[in-house]
Amino acid sequence: MKFFEDTAVGDRREFGRHTFTVDEIKRFALAFDPQPFHVDEEAARRSHFGALCASGWHTTAACMRLIVDYHKRVAAEMTARGERPAKVGPSPGFRNLKWLKPVYAGDTVTFASEVIELRPSASRPQWGVVRMRTTGTNQKGERVYEVEAAAFIERRSA
Amino acid sequence: MKFFEDTAVGDRREFGRHTFTVDEIKRFALAFDPQPFHVDEEAARRSHFGALCASGWHTTAACMRLIVDYHKRVAAEMTARGERPAKVGPSPGFRNLKWLKPVYAGDTVTFASEVIELRPSASRPQWGVVRMRTTGTNQKGERVYEVEAAAFIERRSA
Repeated sequence: MKFFEDTAVGDRREFGRHTFTVDEIKRFALAFDPQPFHVDEEAARRSHFGALCASGWHTTAACMRLIVDYHKRVAAEMTARGERPAKVGPSPGFRNLKWLKPVYAGDTVTFASEVIELRPSASRPQWGVVRMRTTGTNQKGERVYEVEAAAFIERRSA
Repeated sequence: MKFFEDTAVGDRREFGRHTFTVDEIKRFALAFDPQPFHVDEEAARRSHFGALCASGWHTTAACMRLIVDYHKRVAAEMTARGERPAKVGPSPGFRNLKWLKPVYAGDTVTFASEVIELRPSASRPQWGVVRMRTTGTNQKGERVYEVEAAAFIERRSA
């Protein structure tokens, strides 16, 4: 992760893309969200979704995986350049999580984020707080997922 | 699901409890959130968490599973009594998702919800909107998880 001081409002990061296969949608849903439209094509066709689609929590989990992989790549690149990556604190949570459209089997979703607010932490001087809007966009350019996240990021001055 | 008209602010539902095992924490995290403190006991001990703990997204997914199972039980009981269960629409999303404390390996979390607001849907007369606060509480009585959810619930008058 870049340090707080090296981050600016408007910074955009593209985490990568994920294709949601039938098998993976069913496997996740059987474990965590076994509603008919997530586990059975025929039941999904008869549902308000009209076709098999991923659990919203599967979308969030797939996004998280791409975010973790992205930060590992960034950290490795910084280390390779002889820089120390900034530490990231635990996430205090999320606001306004929205599943805007269904993610259907076969859809490819690209996840990205934009920094929407930066402020020093009042209580922890070695950290800054970064607020980001993370989005998922399908192969037709439709936004399917959106969430506002806050993270504690190490300050260079710390 | 009970109909909108049969639901009241303050109604509390207990969905059930889930024990997060080491194996399950690692399996989820390897797939979706492979940060060191979710996949490796030794790395977790050295982290700010101090011990292996579940991905926050694992907590949300385990909660979802208990919610789905709960609603299936309620629907089956209503059907057995000769009643028709109310339909539930897709969730428009969540507000203020908070992971208040880590969920450590071996922790048992009880998930419950309380109705905090009820209103007819302005745009869809056959539906009501129910807002709930869903919480997770560990075996020590500490709240570890909280989220505010809205759901569309069928109106009896529809």
